[in-house]
Amino acid sequence: MTVLERLAELGLSLPDVPTPVANYLPGKRVGDLLYLSGQGPRNEQGGYHLGKVGSDVSVEQAYEHARLAGLALLAAAQSLVPDLDRLEAVKLLGMVNAFPEFGQHPQVINGCSDLFVQVLGERGRHARSAVGMGSLPNNMTVEIEAIFKIHD
Amino acid sequence: MTVLERLAELGLSLPDVPTPVANYLPGKRVGDLLYLSGQGPRNEQGGYHLGKVGSDVSVEQAYEHARLAGLALLAAAQSLVPDLDRLEAVKLLGMVNAFPEFGQHPQVINGCSDLFVQVLGERGRHARSAVGMGSLPNNMTVEIEAIFKIHD
Amino acid sequence: MTVLERLAELGLSLPDVPTPVANYLPGKRVGDLLYLSGQGPRNEQGGYHLGKVGSDVSVEQAYEHARLAGLALLAAAQSLVPDLDRLEAVKLLGMVNAFPEFGQHPQVINGCSDLFVQVLGERGRHARSAVGMGSLPNNMTVEIEAIFKIHD
Repeated sequence: MTVLERLAELGLSLPDVPTPVANYLPGKRVGDLLYLSGQGPRNEQGGYHLGKVGSDVSVEQAYEHARLAGLALLAAAQSLVPDLDRLEAVKLLGMVNAFPEFGQHPQVINGCSDLFVQVLGERGRHARSAVGMGSLPNNMTVEIEAIFKIHD
Repeated sequence: MTVLERLAELGLSLPDVPTPVANYLPGKRVGDLLYLSGQGPRNEQGGYHLGKVGSDVSVEQAYEHARLAGLALLAAAQSLVPDLDRLEAVKLLGMVNAFPEFGQHPQVINGCSDLFVQVLGERGRHARSAVGMGSLPNNMTVEIEAIFKIHD
Repeated sequence: MTVLERLAELGLSLPDVPTPVANYLPGKRVGDLLYLSGQGPRNEQGGYHLGKVGSDVSVEQAYEHARLAGLALLAAAQSLVPDLDRLEAVKLLGMVNAFPEFGQHPQVINGCSDLFVQVLGERGRHARSAVGMGSLPNNMTVEIEAIFKIHD
């Protein structure tokens, strides 16, 4: 089954990749590595899910937001490497906009990690850190950046 | 026009690279990748611009600080790869020392992204994340780390 | 002297590598690069050292915690590359769970940097950033992620 078939089976489709509004790119390829810019969780109105995780937003909600950020990362990857079956996840930095006493960052970022394994299979397993930021752009709940390997 | 000529045209020169005061390096090369240590915005007295962005320091001031951090990154790169025309920006992690409700991290880190495109041209475009830290060394306003590709 | 001999001379041994409890890995190798997941400072009871650095925990204590995180990184590396003498440290992201006015992140992360140079020699020197997070998993004091180069 291809990555697109697995996404369809899960009822998921890839969002549009927003054009960066400044001098940076959704991602950059160097050799067989693809460095992706941080992505946040877009909502159905085209904005982002906002708030501090652990106070404004529950762990369960934030898990879904990490999954949305993961979909945005796959969409950004596809804009650079159209055939998603060539991708292997290498490393995530999962950043949670949490209140200072929050401690369940791994449970939040699992939303992205689980998605990658669901759609990429064994190639979806990766190294990662799941940590708490002091703040995030527009007060987004989560932002995740990723490195993928591109197979021939 | 070379990178040094573009810097001169902008009225900019590269600062000295401070010697790390501990067991780390300004940067490390592996193959054709150059990993640079995080750099902050030095002021004319040799210290750093300090304060929380969004409360002590404005977005406009912090944009200039991100530009100074970008100059420090180019200086660190030059200490390892003397010919700056061989460099291509790959990835930035732009870290803003912001108050918890701050949301304009991209506008701050643009100071570094804009500089890289001004002096490196198309090779200056990069993937990046622009995020908010809980604190930074000495209460610096911004710190940016970077990965460059080294061309032959 | 081998890396294991240097560790023994320092009276240190590598801890067990905890099995990740989710869809991620302790580390992932791509070519000659090894990306390691973030590691925290485990205590003798199998839990983690907890608290905010600069208020609950002193710089000196946190230095020791960064050293413990460094040992956990070496253990994770060994689980993927059994011969530690093939490893060269490339890049650290040293994350301190600090209170917002804290400024001595470099002095904390030196605990890991010093360890790497003590046991890996010149190959232990690396690029790094040492920064302050808003929060960390379970309220751990520090978390450090690393990239190593694997020599033949």
